Amino acid sequence: MEEIILINEVTSTSFNNKNSKGLFISFEGGEGSGKSTQIRLLSNDLSKNNLPFVLTREPGGTPVGEEIRKTLVSGKVEKLDSYSELLCFVAARRQHLKDLIIPSLNEGKIVICDRFVDSTIVYQGYAGGVSLDKIKILHEEYCFGIYPDLTILLDIDPEKGLKRKTFSNLNEDRFENQQIDFHYNIRKKYLELTEIYKNRFIKIDGSLNKIEIFEIIKSQIMNFFKKI
Amino acid sequence: MEEIILINEVTSTSFNNKNSKGLFISFEGGEGSGKSTQIRLLSNDLSKNNLPFVLTREPGGTPVGEEIRKTLVSGKVEKLDSYSELLCFVAARRQHLKDLIIPSLNEGKIVICDRFVDSTIVYQGYAGGVSLDKIKILHEEYCFGIYPDLTILLDIDPEKGLKRKTFSNLNEDRFENQQIDFHYNIRKKYLELTEIYKNRFIKIDGSLNKIEIFEIIKSQIMNFFKKI
Repeated sequence: MEEIILINEVTSTSFNNKNSKGLFISFEGGEGSGKSTQIRLLSNDLSKNNLPFVLTREPGGTPVGEEIRKTLVSGKVEKLDSYSELLCFVAARRQHLKDLIIPSLNEGKIVICDRFVDSTIVYQGYAGGVSLDKIKILHEEYCFGIYPDLTILLDIDPEKGLKRKTFSNLNEDRFENQQIDFHYNIRKKYLELTEIYKNRFIKIDGSLNKIEIFEIIKSQIMNFFKKI
Repeated sequence: MEEIILINEVTSTSFNNKNSKGLFISFEGGEGSGKSTQIRLLSNDLSKNNLPFVLTREPGGTPVGEEIRKTLVSGKVEKLDSYSELLCFVAARRQHLKDLIIPSLNEGKIVICDRFVDSTIVYQGYAGGVSLDKIKILHEEYCFGIYPDLTILLDIDPEKGLKRKTFSNLNEDRFENQQIDFHYNIRKKYLELTEIYKNRFIKIDGSLNKIEIFEIIKSQIMNFFKKI
């Protein structure tokens, strides 16, 4: 079922017409929102259309980023406070941008990133008590102020999401093991972000069928290319 | 030879008269400057005099700090740029202060720290090209603007220091494997810091005999207590 309709309207040619700047797409959402599934569908689609892309994630994305990820996502929740976490995320993101994202965009590639700065804004920011301003200052100062061109938010009721979530990564329990209220708060904050960053955020109902969701994502990417 | 003259003038009583604020001493210096030896001598001395103290180090000092240390000190030099390193050091330092240093000082303990913010100023700052201002801003914002009461700089010619250095920690080659020029630059920058932070810096000739050095350190700690 995943081998369906391809993004055949976005050809290598039309993509390259975008002045080799590439396209930076981030996926955001709470636990079990279906990010991984949609990222896989999109990757398969791009592959089949011979469109150059890079698949990456945060925290992580580079060897050193993956080391920092281990520190951030494993072990006890209380080992780092929100401010220390923020600094680690910004460090990993800086290297991620320098070593992978910016070079890939400069080569004209589509960069698909599983979580980016919006996760920091939501998790360390809103839920952890760090102000949006503080995060923005660090992002400008250390991460070149780069935001995705498109941010796909898969919005789902946290109870549905957590039920759906397969516990395949049992060690990565940094946020999954929080109380349900935490997840409701995260959802609320994501929805607030869609208002703040209207231009790049695309909110999609994560409870829809995965094929329906993918159709929406595809059409949004088309729209983006048409606008260029 | 290490079981020599104790800091017998600083009794628990005179220490506690310091309003339970504790005393925060950092040790700084290039490779092979003799920091470890002096820290051991001081610890032995404090133990024998039943003075409450905590021995710690940076990066590290806490379980999560040690995890971040592994990322910072092992592997290839070029895996993190100076700015990403700075952010990681600040994150680890914040937790170190919150979890260990501040509580220990509040309990009236002497905190002996092998490297602290001055190492960051010198290694990421001067040698890595990050401005002192940038480091100070992060230190104020994320590390409560806390500086040591006393900073002991063991100053030694880099060639002598590197010869003296035993390569017991072969994995921790993050800075040791740099060119000799790098180490000369580090020394120069440390010496500049002794001018900027005259009040807390004590520069000691690291090529002296270890007992002579320890006598100087001891007398400086005495002086500090006398001033309170």
